[in-house]
Amino acid sequence: MATEERILIKDCKVVPMVKGLAEPGDLYYEGEIAVEGHTIAAVGPVGTVPPGWRADRVIQARGMVAMPGFVNAHTHAAMTLLRSYADDLPLMQWLEQKIWPLEAKLEPEDVYWGTMLCILEMIQSGTTSFADMYFYMDQVARAVADSGIRGCLSRGLIGLQENASQALAENRELVRNWHGQADGRVTVMLGPHAPYTCPPAFLEQVMAAADDLRVGLHIHVAETGVEKDDIERQYGKSPVQHLDAVGVFRYPVLAAHCVHLNAEDITVLKERQVGVAHNPESNMKLASGIAPVPQMLEAGIPVALGTDGAASNNNLDMMEEMRAAALLHKVSTGNPTVIPSYQAMEMATKNGARALGLRDVGTLQAGKKADIILLDFERPHLYPHHDILAHLVYAAQAADVQTVIVNGRVLMENREVKTIDTERVLYEVSHRAKRLTGK
Amino acid sequence: MATEERILIKDCKVVPMVKGLAEPGDLYYEGEIAVEGHTIAAVGPVGTVPPGWRADRVIQARGMVAMPGFVNAHTHAAMTLLRSYADDLPLMQWLEQKIWPLEAKLEPEDVYWGTMLCILEMIQSGTTSFADMYFYMDQVARAVADSGIRGCLSRGLIGLQENASQALAENRELVRNWHGQADGRVTVMLGPHAPYTCPPAFLEQVMAAADDLRVGLHIHVAETGVEKDDIERQYGKSPVQHLDAVGVFRYPVLAAHCVHLNAEDITVLKERQVGVAHNPESNMKLASGIAPVPQMLEAGIPVALGTDGAASNNNLDMMEEMRAAALLHKVSTGNPTVIPSYQAMEMATKNGARALGLRDVGTLQAGKKADIILLDFERPHLYPHHDILAHLVYAAQAADVQTVIVNGRVLMENREVKTIDTERVLYEVSHRAKRLTGK
Repeated sequence: MATEERILIKDCKVVPMVKGLAEPGDLYYEGEIAVEGHTIAAVGPVGTVPPGWRADRVIQARGMVAMPGFVNAHTHAAMTLLRSYADDLPLMQWLEQKIWPLEAKLEPEDVYWGTMLCILEMIQSGTTSFADMYFYMDQVARAVADSGIRGCLSRGLIGLQENASQALAENRELVRNWHGQADGRVTVMLGPHAPYTCPPAFLEQVMAAADDLRVGLHIHVAETGVEKDDIERQYGKSPVQHLDAVGVFRYPVLAAHCVHLNAEDITVLKERQVGVAHNPESNMKLASGIAPVPQMLEAGIPVALGTDGAASNNNLDMMEEMRAAALLHKVSTGNPTVIPSYQAMEMATKNGARALGLRDVGTLQAGKKADIILLDFERPHLYPHHDILAHLVYAAQAADVQTVIVNGRVLMENREVKTIDTERVLYEVSHRAKRLTGK
Repeated sequence: MATEERILIKDCKVVPMVKGLAEPGDLYYEGEIAVEGHTIAAVGPVGTVPPGWRADRVIQARGMVAMPGFVNAHTHAAMTLLRSYADDLPLMQWLEQKIWPLEAKLEPEDVYWGTMLCILEMIQSGTTSFADMYFYMDQVARAVADSGIRGCLSRGLIGLQENASQALAENRELVRNWHGQADGRVTVMLGPHAPYTCPPAFLEQVMAAADDLRVGLHIHVAETGVEKDDIERQYGKSPVQHLDAVGVFRYPVLAAHCVHLNAEDITVLKERQVGVAHNPESNMKLASGIAPVPQMLEAGIPVALGTDGAASNNNLDMMEEMRAAALLHKVSTGNPTVIPSYQAMEMATKNGARALGLRDVGTLQAGKKADIILLDFERPHLYPHHDILAHLVYAAQAADVQTVIVNGRVLMENREVKTIDTERVLYEVSHRAKRLTGK
């Protein structure tokens, strides 16, 4: 699996997501990147890489933009199998009559192939890391290992279901078998689903596991107004303050959604250093509400972005999420200056890495993991070149991503994914989708 | 220019945007399309085209979806030259300090090449007709003629400016020289900019021209809250009711934006059969507000979609506008069932054709103009194939468009635009953008 290739990426514009690397205050520069093994050996303006540095492979990237790969901070990968199976429905009808009955029929191999489809699409749209919560997670880990992407995996735990203990045992097993595996590309979290599905007694068991295993938690928080109202009725506290009171935020937490928050909730999330994954397209499509993202950013919370599962999006395109976040919050606040382009980029890259607990990911800097994407800017919709960052957020498309490198390995080159048999994946998901729907 | 090619498109899924063509109630079917000259000769399920029908060219479209090309119902094409030149700014600062000073430097040839860049991007994203309002419109007409796309053009008229009479004379000249030209692909409207820039006396002159020339009007209406307040203060009426009182709606009108409306405004727009062009991404980016689109659709107004200019979007991608419209109004109303996928498709196709006054465009039916696009559905992000229409609105990308036919002529095949010299366009816009910005 591992490669120790030495790669030189030349003559591109570099957007390192660290300010002032070339000159004070600059956001990008004409530069080059040297990759050695899993790591960025050097990155900087032209001339940074020593002339004698030996490359096994030179990527001539003139006309391209190099940036850190996107971090999809919340998804349910195998739900690609349910993509466009049910849309434009009221939430509970969608879940109870459509999504849950199909999910009940899923077999382990379905999850493997659905996840492979998800990973294939993510690589093709420039995502290099993702946070997943689902079941049959050993299959997801296998797909991450096979495909070369980076995955932060959690077994979804519904404390109210009969299988809760079994699921928690599976999540523990997932940590033991997979945390740090595949050259460090797989990491594992515990996945208590949400405050309304995990009563405090169950959350205690999850926290005990987190103490044993020294891993973080991935949880849905305050996704809908119904959840907020129910939790307030039951516990006399908002979902965030309820979780805080139970002690959940003593652990590293990746909190998905965080739509229905009050000012005190934002303070708690900031003080406890909770990683927040905002999912604008899913929240819009399911009419869940508009998260107070500008307020969270203002408070200093490094909000990340996620796509959520393909049943409620219906794609895994992080460039769309950047754009949706930047546009939605401008109109919802009536302020066209909120979430400017660079901040949207931060959300999609380094904020995501931080939320997933990936210290060596999310920026292009020497010593960091080589998770790099190249976008072709010689496209009509990216002309003229007034502002590269505004183009990336407001004009670019997933299909502009040409090359994807994860952990120093080239997963896609000239839009061809090298590590996945695309035809096999499309065949498998088609047949499995037919079996699931009986069509 | 004209071709009289006979084209047979075989073995695709056809989304005609007319219900029940194959079987009652169906939205799409496995079918085929015959094109003769500018026109669709036959379209229907496999077997519709007589076996003896002679084709000059057969397009084997297995795995593709055929649908009417998108109608971009409101843009300012040459503003591609200002794409990403200024973003994330307060509206008046953006206009006064950034956009207007650059526009003042534009020369006729700049508008030609900026428009060609816009058309190139529109063809690559499946748009076959567009409504434009700008200046040096003879250059825009020339670009439409040269490129093969369909354009409904209006000279923007600012009644408050010194050049108002001259501009109106140019708009009259544009009608005389170009209306119905280029095999009927160019049509012309008058372009009174907005109620706040065109006082009633000037609108009277525009209406007199409309009487003379028998053409419609393209106008911005109620785009911002400031406009609504100003018009109400000045005339004691909402922008819509003010225009109605002046008599503007006695003519065929394409009204862009219509963000700030009351219930009575919606009734007026419906009764006067005004064509409404909703621009969700522009309205979001400029924080203009959220148009009451579900209410307009509920009232029976066939709302169309537009991108607005590339300085406020920053692309010309109608698939994004479909998705933005479908998602924005779900979350803003709290109702996940509003603007379901088929309705979003109608907005982007046949509603647009109607708003532009194009009777023979917007659906795939025998006798209509052959404005057809083919999308490749053999892509990971479009698997599995549960619901073609949901895929088109919620999952597809501009780059999935493979083939574009306008007026019976193949403008793009396998993503290669045949009628435009792409390298020349990119060279011209780069150099002109540098001249404009002094960089």
